[in-house]
Amino acid sequence: MDFFPPALENLVEQFAKLPGVGRKSAQRLAFYILGQPEERAKAFAQALLDAKASIGFCPVCQNLTQGSGPCALCSSARRDRSVICVVADPKDVVAMERAREYRGVYHVLHGVISPMNHVGPDDLRISQLMERISAGGVSEVIMATNPDTEGETTAMYLSRLVKPFGVKVTRLAYGIPVGSHLEFADEATLGRALEGRREM
Amino acid sequence: MDFFPPALENLVEQFAKLPGVGRKSAQRLAFYILGQPEERAKAFAQALLDAKASIGFCPVCQNLTQGSGPCALCSSARRDRSVICVVADPKDVVAMERAREYRGVYHVLHGVISPMNHVGPDDLRISQLMERISAGGVSEVIMATNPDTEGETTAMYLSRLVKPFGVKVTRLAYGIPVGSHLEFADEATLGRALEGRREM
Repeated sequence: MDFFPPALENLVEQFAKLPGVGRKSAQRLAFYILGQPEERAKAFAQALLDAKASIGFCPVCQNLTQGSGPCALCSSARRDRSVICVVADPKDVVAMERAREYRGVYHVLHGVISPMNHVGPDDLRISQLMERISAGGVSEVIMATNPDTEGETTAMYLSRLVKPFGVKVTRLAYGIPVGSHLEFADEATLGRALEGRREM
Repeated sequence: MDFFPPALENLVEQFAKLPGVGRKSAQRLAFYILGQPEERAKAFAQALLDAKASIGFCPVCQNLTQGSGPCALCSSARRDRSVICVVADPKDVVAMERAREYRGVYHVLHGVISPMNHVGPDDLRISQLMERISAGGVSEVIMATNPDTEGETTAMYLSRLVKPFGVKVTRLAYGIPVGSHLEFADEATLGRALEGRREM
């Protein structure tokens, strides 16, 4: 591909490095940028720099936050600091908040224990969680990792660490998704839904 | 979505503005950038700025080029300036060059005549083509617009403009793609292939 000018080729390569973006899509995106007004390209470039420069981790819950102080959730007076919901990923915090049910705070592990991918407990933000718990004032830890093998393993591992502190450890309920149909539920989900049935 | 820090939200929005990138993909890309070393994000930002700042149009063939002088193809001593291949798009130049068959120069229209999309002849780089032809020294103009209605219309329109200058106007051949199968060829292509058959 010697036929693109170097600056264009470089932009194509940068796009092609993004996950899920192939060479053809990268070309399409680069041509799109060339066709946009210069301010648009500048705004994009600035957004990249700003995000990397200003986004850090909340020193309390380890969620992504702007600046270096505690995040908006950890510093909110309306959140119950005695309940910590443990999630694998910042996106899971967004999902939980969207449900508008939860009033406690979070702890973001940034991953799950996954021997297959060489991720052990030391690669996650587990020590920071234990510090919060040993500092006291925590009455419940809700495990909200994904209901897959790795999420389960991680929840199980953490629960063994947390219980000795006399803190209640709970797990999100399994069951049929709201609005779904029984016929589409897999056996594992149905089994868990039956197991977790409640009196009406 | 008030749960992402503003700089992250801004980056997500910038990605979501790209063609074919939805909100979910934009989130994925933004998180990918956050997970990359800062130099990677800087290189990406710089590539965006450089491409917009340094890529312009070749004053001769109107193809994209770095800097303001004639492009590498137009200034190459090995290209035959008496043959001009007219294409709709810079990507078509890349496709033609990949075939390693063509030794002439190009003219990039930057679009095709398309009344549906409100693109008329004045929106294309047609006057620049006519200037090159009226300056003399051109013996053949090869129409290499796409074989669809708009490409055909554009080729037809240009051929009427060019012929009065006594320049030969040709069109790329239609036919069965090499390596393809007859059974997969549509009727229009088969009809054109039959019409354009050559003695063996």
